[in-house]
Amino acid sequence: PDHESSAAVARALDGKMKPLHSLGRLEGLAARVASIRGTTTPRVDSPVVLVCAADHGIARAGVSAYPQEVTGQMLAAFAGGRAAVAILAHQADAQLVVADLGVVDPPQLHPTHAYAPVLDRRVRAGTDNSAEGWAMTRAEAEQAVAVGIRLAEDLIEDGADLIALGEMGIGSTTTASILTSAILDRDPARVVGAGTGLEGEALAHKVETVDAVLARHEDVEDPWDVLAAMGGLEIAALAGVALACAAHRVPALLDGFISTAGALVAWRLCPAAADAMIAAHRSTEPGHSMQLEEMGLTPLLDLQMRLGEASGAALAIPLIRSSLALLQDMGDLADLSSGS
Amino acid sequence: PDHESSAAVARALDGKMKPLHSLGRLEGLAARVASIRGTTTPRVDSPVVLVCAADHGIARAGVSAYPQEVTGQMLAAFAGGRAAVAILAHQADAQLVVADLGVVDPPQLHPTHAYAPVLDRRVRAGTDNSAEGWAMTRAEAEQAVAVGIRLAEDLIEDGADLIALGEMGIGSTTTASILTSAILDRDPARVVGAGTGLEGEALAHKVETVDAVLARHEDVEDPWDVLAAMGGLEIAALAGVALACAAHRVPALLDGFISTAGALVAWRLCPAAADAMIAAHRSTEPGHSMQLEEMGLTPLLDLQMRLGEASGAALAIPLIRSSLALLQDMGDLADLSSGS
Repeated sequence: PDHESSAAVARALDGKMKPLHSLGRLEGLAARVASIRGTTTPRVDSPVVLVCAADHGIARAGVSAYPQEVTGQMLAAFAGGRAAVAILAHQADAQLVVADLGVVDPPQLHPTHAYAPVLDRRVRAGTDNSAEGWAMTRAEAEQAVAVGIRLAEDLIEDGADLIALGEMGIGSTTTASILTSAILDRDPARVVGAGTGLEGEALAHKVETVDAVLARHEDVEDPWDVLAAMGGLEIAALAGVALACAAHRVPALLDGFISTAGALVAWRLCPAAADAMIAAHRSTEPGHSMQLEEMGLTPLLDLQMRLGEASGAALAIPLIRSSLALLQDMGDLADLSSGS
Repeated sequence: PDHESSAAVARALDGKMKPLHSLGRLEGLAARVASIRGTTTPRVDSPVVLVCAADHGIARAGVSAYPQEVTGQMLAAFAGGRAAVAILAHQADAQLVVADLGVVDPPQLHPTHAYAPVLDRRVRAGTDNSAEGWAMTRAEAEQAVAVGIRLAEDLIEDGADLIALGEMGIGSTTTASILTSAILDRDPARVVGAGTGLEGEALAHKVETVDAVLARHEDVEDPWDVLAAMGGLEIAALAGVALACAAHRVPALLDGFISTAGALVAWRLCPAAADAMIAAHRSTEPGHSMQLEEMGLTPLLDLQMRLGEASGAALAIPLIRSSLALLQDMGDLADLSSGS
């Protein structure tokens, strides 16, 4: 982090025509973006919402309210502009990019008339069931992370000055619960939430499934091996995106529980990666608050959302832009008497 | 409220391509706007941020960190586009309108090149000191409320489909504390906050001042008389704005402690006025949470802000627009398999 830039921004905000610190968290937000970007005049002119999608073998353990083919169908909905994140990215004046890391039933897309591109970055057709063996090989996990790094680097080279991390994949809250329990050494019963809408026995079954996967892989300790054994492909890619954002000093705007699982993997591999992260919102998934707290992040929004896709991240983009506009355009207290 | 429209919107959102209720508070927000507007297809295309400004006689009791002439200077900064709310309204693609209800030192403005109009709606040159007598006459209080009603009606006639309530006036948190303590019958020591930045003895003096004003007017019970005795002009006007919004079914987007004091006066005069209100954010002023709770409102944002001006309200406009865009443009679950 660039403490000089953030301190200079804080000083500049102290001189603006307002009571000291009265813009609350917007002030720290502007200072954080300055620190990440390494400049006292940061801008977010070209934000990109990047949704990584893949399927999870663990979905076959009956841990989701939806069948696996929904993952591919949602990809088509992203491309067509009808899914929530497509609408929210448009509202935030952000570009939506979708990457298929390994969807089992990828949709047939018509490249023309598409609202968002769906990039073919398939590592394999979904992971294996982590309750029965490793979700993927270590080489595949490394490949998925590398794909994420490359995706982010391409976007940054094209001008992206903020990347919002989103995801799609039936079964993904289960994989995120497994990874979060493993990385933070927490009791799955406290980490696991309703996901897309489980309750009662179905929720208890999800906790048991997470327990079983953790037991099966209890000897796995190396973080790369943890990622490979437990999955998933899109989470690995998002870890790569978070790493690349940190390396290139571009804010990585975290969405909910699953995208933050990717960020948590990045943080486990390289703790300094958290310095480039901004938490957009607090999901209702209990494990999400644990992830954020561990990485020292406080979310900007708490709207009781649990959709994923980067929907919460997209909503936070205007807040970030506003914090920077205030830094850039607000007059100083010293100018007040002059009347402009 | 139009329960039929809000129920229809809730049903429509239940059918969208997402897990049930996974958009959290955005869903209730869209339903609330539908209920206020009386339609299942509400839009916020022409939001207006309306800042009412006036001076407070109580400021002469030494309850603010700033001198009274700052009120007029800030009016010039609104007109010039350099104040926080001007920048945030621009970011939210909302029109900024400023009304002078009675600033002691109004600025000389150049109508051309102005970022925002400053409307002359002066009732009197600031209120009297409510610690020494009535802040204004009952007729003046009624006139200020009527000015607010007329301001809102003019904006609505010109197409405003949401009005954000903002304010400016040195000493206004003291008047808001007095009114809130009186209307809600609360202990001033719990209602009063730091305002623009008081602490220690200065804060204790503010509490004593509020106590003294309440003691002086303890026999005043009629809500119009309470408003006249305690002030202020801009709070009275904002009460009128809230009443007009309710009458014309236009969302009244509340900002912080002072604008919500105006809303509280409207609610005291006509409880149904709260049905048209949306709470944008939670201010750090302790009395703000009391006001919102009493009116059954839960704020959308909590960013530790305490600037006023409608700064928090402006930040919430994109959230409201996004909730309506989702309602309007998201595809249905039933469309999923067709791939668009």
